[in-house]
Amino acid sequence: MYKLIEEVKAKTPLVLNYTNEVTINDCANIILALGASPLMSYSYEEVEDIVSVADAVVINIGTMKSENIELFVQAGKLANKHKKPVVLDPVGVFATKARTMLVKRMLDEIDFDVIKGNASEIKFIGGFEVKGKGVDSFDETDDIEEMVKTISKKLGCVIVATGKTDIVSDGERTAKIENGSAKLKSVTGTGCMTAALVGSYLGTGKDPFECASMGVLTMSLAGELADGVGIGIGGFKSNLMDSVYGLDVSDFETHSKIGMI
Amino acid sequence: MYKLIEEVKAKTPLVLNYTNEVTINDCANIILALGASPLMSYSYEEVEDIVSVADAVVINIGTMKSENIELFVQAGKLANKHKKPVVLDPVGVFATKARTMLVKRMLDEIDFDVIKGNASEIKFIGGFEVKGKGVDSFDETDDIEEMVKTISKKLGCVIVATGKTDIVSDGERTAKIENGSAKLKSVTGTGCMTAALVGSYLGTGKDPFECASMGVLTMSLAGELADGVGIGIGGFKSNLMDSVYGLDVSDFETHSKIGMI
Amino acid sequence: MYKLIEEVKAKTPLVLNYTNEVTINDCANIILALGASPLMSYSYEEVEDIVSVADAVVINIGTMKSENIELFVQAGKLANKHKKPVVLDPVGVFATKARTMLVKRMLDEIDFDVIKGNASEIKFIGGFEVKGKGVDSFDETDDIEEMVKTISKKLGCVIVATGKTDIVSDGERTAKIENGSAKLKSVTGTGCMTAALVGSYLGTGKDPFECASMGVLTMSLAGELADGVGIGIGGFKSNLMDSVYGLDVSDFETHSKIGMI
Repeated sequence: MYKLIEEVKAKTPLVLNYTNEVTINDCANIILALGASPLMSYSYEEVEDIVSVADAVVINIGTMKSENIELFVQAGKLANKHKKPVVLDPVGVFATKARTMLVKRMLDEIDFDVIKGNASEIKFIGGFEVKGKGVDSFDETDDIEEMVKTISKKLGCVIVATGKTDIVSDGERTAKIENGSAKLKSVTGTGCMTAALVGSYLGTGKDPFECASMGVLTMSLAGELADGVGIGIGGFKSNLMDSVYGLDVSDFETHSKIGMI
Repeated sequence: MYKLIEEVKAKTPLVLNYTNEVTINDCANIILALGASPLMSYSYEEVEDIVSVADAVVINIGTMKSENIELFVQAGKLANKHKKPVVLDPVGVFATKARTMLVKRMLDEIDFDVIKGNASEIKFIGGFEVKGKGVDSFDETDDIEEMVKTISKKLGCVIVATGKTDIVSDGERTAKIENGSAKLKSVTGTGCMTAALVGSYLGTGKDPFECASMGVLTMSLAGELADGVGIGIGGFKSNLMDSVYGLDVSDFETHSKIGMI
Repeated sequence: MYKLIEEVKAKTPLVLNYTNEVTINDCANIILALGASPLMSYSYEEVEDIVSVADAVVINIGTMKSENIELFVQAGKLANKHKKPVVLDPVGVFATKARTMLVKRMLDEIDFDVIKGNASEIKFIGGFEVKGKGVDSFDETDDIEEMVKTISKKLGCVIVATGKTDIVSDGERTAKIENGSAKLKSVTGTGCMTAALVGSYLGTGKDPFECASMGVLTMSLAGELADGVGIGIGGFKSNLMDSVYGLDVSDFETHSKIGMI
């Protein structure tokens, strides 16, 4: 599975991001750092054209910009039409009615290959109860692994639930990733960047479960390697890009704390 | 007053930013660095929902995006309706007629808790004459302290005028902050980030004058601590985030150059 | 020609950027780093007002946001009306029909002083065939210098084609710049920042060929000086800002690899 990082670098897939204004620059940079090629567009005029040249599409509803709502739905449907892998990052899905309704509509109209959220977002999407606060909420639960597996079966796609431990499941296989750094929560956009990395791996055209696992593992491992004594969050963010840029198969072999359940 | 930083970290208030596309990422990161939680939205569909869950609202007109003008006004009015503290950053208010009219309208329709601008912006809002150039203009004046106090009384809210010396006044109390670094003018967004910090402190629900003073002092002191021999502006920006992240009560006690007038 | 950097610092021209959401922060910061003053706006309400106070206008179509298409065309026409130098960065012009049509329309309706793109974008604009992939494509060609000169004559403005070697031509004079770093392709926005630097030099009101050459040389030289053993891309980006901030005439005299053809 770790060799997928070499496939990204060999193919440099075009990763089309329909994303928020807060972390759009970080998403572009992390895609470049991995070795893929970022594309961003907010244009109805070119949506079909640009989806059709992309190798993967990522949809992130972070700022819920009114002008983009129909655009993001169109992009997802066109990704299906043109058989491009498509990732959903349902940021703060439970925070407002508008977010909940948009995500419900997208789940109805679009077949996603991967849905990535934090544990609260994934629980909410799966129909479990959430007492969240803001878009970065976490709710600890004993059976998160079983829950992710159940939601994956229910929604028929790979589900990624990020947190202190990251869980990835396609309903049959479930991976548990224990890498990471507490600082990943102190820098904005690490969740958005994880979705962008998942999209970059999906752009290789390989198995969505492995691509999703590698996307999450890349962020968690890069975060772990970026941290250290005396590193502040400014330095951490800079190191994070360096870590992703420098990662190779042997780094994954040496440092990954990933287990199949 | 310095203990407010501990209250931010204890409460992690949700700080909702209606802001510009240039510095939106920096605003999110500085809010996280202080220990609060950033929320960004550009959606009419969720404006009431999201204002009602926020602990403070910041409105920054930096890019004057046409689609957002009504949204920003709505957000301010809803902040009043839901009794959420609300900050205005009237970027470049004197630069174009459209900015002047929007700010005039917002001052008419919204009760702001704090208005933060550079000295030229505050003078203009207060009805004083300004010969400004661009959005970062400064006009030196002998009686800036008296002027800020007068404008605070006139507008009925806390006024912050930033510059080499920062002045904060609620019409009765006036604070003068002498911390800072010349490099704060060489990195974009330090003004926007100051407003975001003021909003983060206001999210604790405490006295607006103290919250505004702490917001400005946090930026000026963090800037001072981030600078040093051989530090370029790239390193300075990274250090600035680290400084805010690391600040505690004892740092304020040791390094603050704040005086009550 | 190198003294133009001192003229920028002395005049601090206002550089108005109609640009994309991905790299807007980097563009603002590089303009500040050089010593000019950035202005960003996405408002139809203020477009004439703000163009009329600017010293130069930069138009970059990077994200092709639907709401901005007419705005960018208006801004270009108003720059002509108010005799402000105006730069076009036709990002990914060949990638979609919508981009091709918008650029064609802008070339018909606006007199640009400088058009800056990568070699593929410039070839496409000039009517040459391109097999590009995405917005960062490069096509090697033997006669790039002659081609840029020809396109400059055809379009009647200064043309900049960036790549491993950068070419600048006004149809009579042609410059070839050999500075640079491979890492400039691993950080997003270095192309956009180059256009912003060209705009900053144009804001001095001096010869467009020299301003365009200095803009490109500044980025390539700063990139070269920012790189080194053990520098990752995070550190490289930070160093890049430092390099631009610190550049002076003697740096250009010592390190420039620029030749007139």
